[in-house]
Amino acid sequence: MNLLAVGAHPDDIEFGCAPVLIKEIRKGNQVKLLVLSRGEAGTTGTPDLREREARDAAAKMGASIEFLDFGGDCNLQYTPENRLRIAREIRIFRPSILLATHPGENQHPDHSVVGKLTRDAARLARYGGLLKPLASHKIDNLFYYNVTQHGLTPDVVIDIGDVVDEWEAVMKCHASQVNSRSYIDLQLSATRLLGLSVGVGHALGLYANDPLRLDALSDITLSSRNF
Amino acid sequence: MNLLAVGAHPDDIEFGCAPVLIKEIRKGNQVKLLVLSRGEAGTTGTPDLREREARDAAAKMGASIEFLDFGGDCNLQYTPENRLRIAREIRIFRPSILLATHPGENQHPDHSVVGKLTRDAARLARYGGLLKPLASHKIDNLFYYNVTQHGLTPDVVIDIGDVVDEWEAVMKCHASQVNSRSYIDLQLSATRLLGLSVGVGHALGLYANDPLRLDALSDITLSSRNF
Amino acid sequence: MNLLAVGAHPDDIEFGCAPVLIKEIRKGNQVKLLVLSRGEAGTTGTPDLREREARDAAAKMGASIEFLDFGGDCNLQYTPENRLRIAREIRIFRPSILLATHPGENQHPDHSVVGKLTRDAARLARYGGLLKPLASHKIDNLFYYNVTQHGLTPDVVIDIGDVVDEWEAVMKCHASQVNSRSYIDLQLSATRLLGLSVGVGHALGLYANDPLRLDALSDITLSSRNF
Amino acid sequence: MNLLAVGAHPDDIEFGCAPVLIKEIRKGNQVKLLVLSRGEAGTTGTPDLREREARDAAAKMGASIEFLDFGGDCNLQYTPENRLRIAREIRIFRPSILLATHPGENQHPDHSVVGKLTRDAARLARYGGLLKPLASHKIDNLFYYNVTQHGLTPDVVIDIGDVVDEWEAVMKCHASQVNSRSYIDLQLSATRLLGLSVGVGHALGLYANDPLRLDALSDITLSSRNF
Amino acid sequence: MNLLAVGAHPDDIEFGCAPVLIKEIRKGNQVKLLVLSRGEAGTTGTPDLREREARDAAAKMGASIEFLDFGGDCNLQYTPENRLRIAREIRIFRPSILLATHPGENQHPDHSVVGKLTRDAARLARYGGLLKPLASHKIDNLFYYNVTQHGLTPDVVIDIGDVVDEWEAVMKCHASQVNSRSYIDLQLSATRLLGLSVGVGHALGLYANDPLRLDALSDITLSSRNF
Amino acid sequence: MNLLAVGAHPDDIEFGCAPVLIKEIRKGNQVKLLVLSRGEAGTTGTPDLREREARDAAAKMGASIEFLDFGGDCNLQYTPENRLRIAREIRIFRPSILLATHPGENQHPDHSVVGKLTRDAARLARYGGLLKPLASHKIDNLFYYNVTQHGLTPDVVIDIGDVVDEWEAVMKCHASQVNSRSYIDLQLSATRLLGLSVGVGHALGLYANDPLRLDALSDITLSSRNF
Repeated sequence: MNLLAVGAHPDDIEFGCAPVLIKEIRKGNQVKLLVLSRGEAGTTGTPDLREREARDAAAKMGASIEFLDFGGDCNLQYTPENRLRIAREIRIFRPSILLATHPGENQHPDHSVVGKLTRDAARLARYGGLLKPLASHKIDNLFYYNVTQHGLTPDVVIDIGDVVDEWEAVMKCHASQVNSRSYIDLQLSATRLLGLSVGVGHALGLYANDPLRLDALSDITLSSRNF
Repeated sequence: MNLLAVGAHPDDIEFGCAPVLIKEIRKGNQVKLLVLSRGEAGTTGTPDLREREARDAAAKMGASIEFLDFGGDCNLQYTPENRLRIAREIRIFRPSILLATHPGENQHPDHSVVGKLTRDAARLARYGGLLKPLASHKIDNLFYYNVTQHGLTPDVVIDIGDVVDEWEAVMKCHASQVNSRSYIDLQLSATRLLGLSVGVGHALGLYANDPLRLDALSDITLSSRNF
Repeated sequence: MNLLAVGAHPDDIEFGCAPVLIKEIRKGNQVKLLVLSRGEAGTTGTPDLREREARDAAAKMGASIEFLDFGGDCNLQYTPENRLRIAREIRIFRPSILLATHPGENQHPDHSVVGKLTRDAARLARYGGLLKPLASHKIDNLFYYNVTQHGLTPDVVIDIGDVVDEWEAVMKCHASQVNSRSYIDLQLSATRLLGLSVGVGHALGLYANDPLRLDALSDITLSSRNF
Repeated sequence: MNLLAVGAHPDDIEFGCAPVLIKEIRKGNQVKLLVLSRGEAGTTGTPDLREREARDAAAKMGASIEFLDFGGDCNLQYTPENRLRIAREIRIFRPSILLATHPGENQHPDHSVVGKLTRDAARLARYGGLLKPLASHKIDNLFYYNVTQHGLTPDVVIDIGDVVDEWEAVMKCHASQVNSRSYIDLQLSATRLLGLSVGVGHALGLYANDPLRLDALSDITLSSRNF
Repeated sequence: MNLLAVGAHPDDIEFGCAPVLIKEIRKGNQVKLLVLSRGEAGTTGTPDLREREARDAAAKMGASIEFLDFGGDCNLQYTPENRLRIAREIRIFRPSILLATHPGENQHPDHSVVGKLTRDAARLARYGGLLKPLASHKIDNLFYYNVTQHGLTPDVVIDIGDVVDEWEAVMKCHASQVNSRSYIDLQLSATRLLGLSVGVGHALGLYANDPLRLDALSDITLSSRNF
Repeated sequence: MNLLAVGAHPDDIEFGCAPVLIKEIRKGNQVKLLVLSRGEAGTTGTPDLREREARDAAAKMGASIEFLDFGGDCNLQYTPENRLRIAREIRIFRPSILLATHPGENQHPDHSVVGKLTRDAARLARYGGLLKPLASHKIDNLFYYNVTQHGLTPDVVIDIGDVVDEWEAVMKCHASQVNSRSYIDLQLSATRLLGLSVGVGHALGLYANDPLRLDALSDITLSSRNF
């Protein structure tokens, strides 16, 4: 199975959803990271350095990575052209599962834009009249992850206790960012809180864009009920 | 696996979620129906008749059924005593999955009350200081179903195409209700609309009380994306 | 009375709100369809064919129709220029009632954009400093319709039982679309479900952008209460 | 046509929705006020005085009035018995339109309870198995009014400019309440603000419990669009 | 200034909002804890033990504490009588600030009930016709705290870094509860996550029942903006 | 302390939040108005006249004022370039408190755009890689004001009784607008209604973009509770 994760900045995917990707890679699935800027607006780190850090992080995870130039950090726009560029990547990599930052507002504007572009791109990838001659592709599921917003109840929760150490190592690849601020601590506090809430050590929450389709209710055998 | 479905009236469970229960029974799981009134307020049908219809329907499904007296149709109340009575049933049957009518308001008031009572009962069933000497029980998941409200986007969708004929036969057991009104047509229209929306013939939607816990994202292999 | 319906694609209006338009035409009102693309992105059907299908459908309904080029299917953008182009059409046709696809997100992005553009255009049409020398126009009411989203409780419900056959014939004009997918079945299931919910055969629901102004409460003499 | 308005305290109906009732009375419709306490908890005014004030106000409006004892001001409870008592009144008076205080929380708890009881009573009044031998009754529409909450966008807006003087006189009947606090000023400010928002002098907003059913869209000939 | 905090169980206040109370006590304000059960339903700890633990915790904080018998743990009900009992306590202690568990549903039912009872009691305490001859009292502000729900964005955030050690010691007074489960870890994870989100070590979030009234905008001199 | 208020049109700030700004100026704080168009689309008044009116109003308030050209009234767009232009102004004026029109939709589209642009600009102003060599600036708080929407419960309420006369004089500076429509009456009705709701003569409500951070709960000494 192929999973494609989209992020606005070189560290978004690693901070926001790397643990679930690491779990998939361990299961033998193919994971690709699609990064839409090189962090040009950051207070610390040059674009070249930030790209290198992201490539190191992807390599450590066992994921492939690709950078697209959408005009640079803080310049991402919700336009038909940008939607189509992501749709093109979806047609090429043909993921079953797609992940992007949450489209909700009141966060870094690039995060919201990436969520909206990716959501729409997943539809456009299905329409036969577009992007010829690339064959249409229909993803199965689209999930959203958070980078710095942690105030919404997730739809899906995944125990990440077995990959939390590897996750921390992956986050540390972004040395230009984590040395000056408490990003790693923030993410681990969020997964610790959610983990305790559901009865495990650390858990990551995601948001489903569509209803989850099950073959039968009893296919869900785990529980998130702890308090 | 045990599944317990709770309804206010003799036909709520059959109209609202029987197809997913039938699927579970076909898989070999144990399903019990807990009915909290005998339809005393209905315009048609006597309480005795309605109980018989429900027992026939349960038998046809292959489910066990039990009636509890909570004061009769239109008399269900959200009280600690009533919560405890359902918690007692949970401790006795020990279900992994619990289903109840949606607790949202602006519907038959009994439906909302059953949703709230069952939601709370699932917590109380865990607390050691209550209902001694019955052993505590922690359910894994609580889902809500609709009877006549069809205006909310569900969290979970299940293809019921293979059981829709059996479902219709089960609904017809409630002859005192279905002869005078379009209940069966209403339910089949709702599952037809949702089915077409997700790309199958008929589908039933449910609402999750808690985040769904997965071992890995790729455990979800079906898709509800069709339009 | 003039009614103007705006759609992104050649079949949006027919699938989403044609029954209420047919009722108005039968009452002697003037209905115009404004279509903002020629379905260039569709998997089936050429733009020329799709325009012809839409013109046939409009003729069958008794509505006038006009196509505007906004850059093509999947290219509609929420920009001041596009708002003004719709405002210009409002000033020319001077409708009392305006209809557009719902502006909510998580649907075909063109549908959301058409809802937002039309909503804003209805304001701009009032401002004297714009679009001179076309005289300002103030619409009375703006309603939204759905094309493939059917999960919101409508604000307004209209019995369409007397026009459902004509509606089906109108939808069938879009042969390039309806032969390959279950669009007609989807719409009829939605209006059937809503119809049963309110006690008629088929009903269409709409969303009001503004509070409905009545002269007196008793002007509302019909009821949507059935379950 | 009959309209039944339900209030918790002797002045709720007068302050919250009297202008729309006065308009109905002027049109020749029958209006009845159902009051569920005698204001026993008020800081000023005795129960006897408050009942007299309400009877005076009803007489001035041309409405009939009835007091029911539900245990007194601040003692209203959301119970099956209380629902049935209101359902009984519905069956006796047989209104087409029913009005009650909004069921939302975070206001005087009696107001929320009256909204919930009345909403449910309107359903129960339909069920043949209840309240025999009183014949079942199905209302057409249920609207909610505000007493002191003014922060929700209404669903329906009605110009009350022609009855605002009579309304003020009706409110002044509750001398024990209005002399000590700014109730009248509060209501007139709310209707003035809403009136200006929709382009008239004073307007009252109401909330619809169910979608409004129209025969055709063009039946709505007024507009609430002003800014 | 007097602050009154209301909790359903002997440890609710300590786990949910003790840090802000400790800060007030250090400033010289009077804090009283009102506890509405003795934890009778708990899996561990007897009622006597749990009351002793709570008294120890209150003493360590420097707060007074009072237990009221509302029928015991898991038996709290939203009734007029119970509202009045809390209103009576409000009239006696005359707090400016009142705190209670959040009234939202889908948590321990007692928590929701305490939130609703306290919210309503704060209104009833103002009405002159009730609870004579105790003088009416109007609180200034009502805030809600969480015990185990941590998924809502708070309205108010308070840095608790300087009292976190004392808070931990206070929580440890509830030895019968904290030895068997991860309650303390859960609370500290939540305040750590919120603290990092706003740029401090630990912060507690609260929910305001009413708009906050300021004399001037510039009275707010701190910031919660960090990411 | 510096406060920066951003508006789309020459009179937005004066109508929407001038009273709180006047209070700050009286306290000795510096207030700057940033206006993003010259009202080119208005039915009455030329751009030159409207700019003069705004400069007169600012002078009367004691605020500085600056006009930026974003393409003119009804042409404001949510683009990265426009965000950066506001971020630049933030870095130059370095406000602690920032105010903008509410970003919610279904109002004049420029109002929503100004809210979104300003919200994002406040983030971008912090990022070191942007707008060099202007030094980064972090605002403390962002509040939104309304111009013509008055249907949301505010987060913050401020008594403006002592400045309401001055506010009215400031609004009257916009003679080209206020002579033809009831803008002043609309604003005064809204502040009168909110004022009565909280127990004062006139009050203005604002919306907080982020949780309010307090040093201690008891720092809030005023109350908005009146009904």
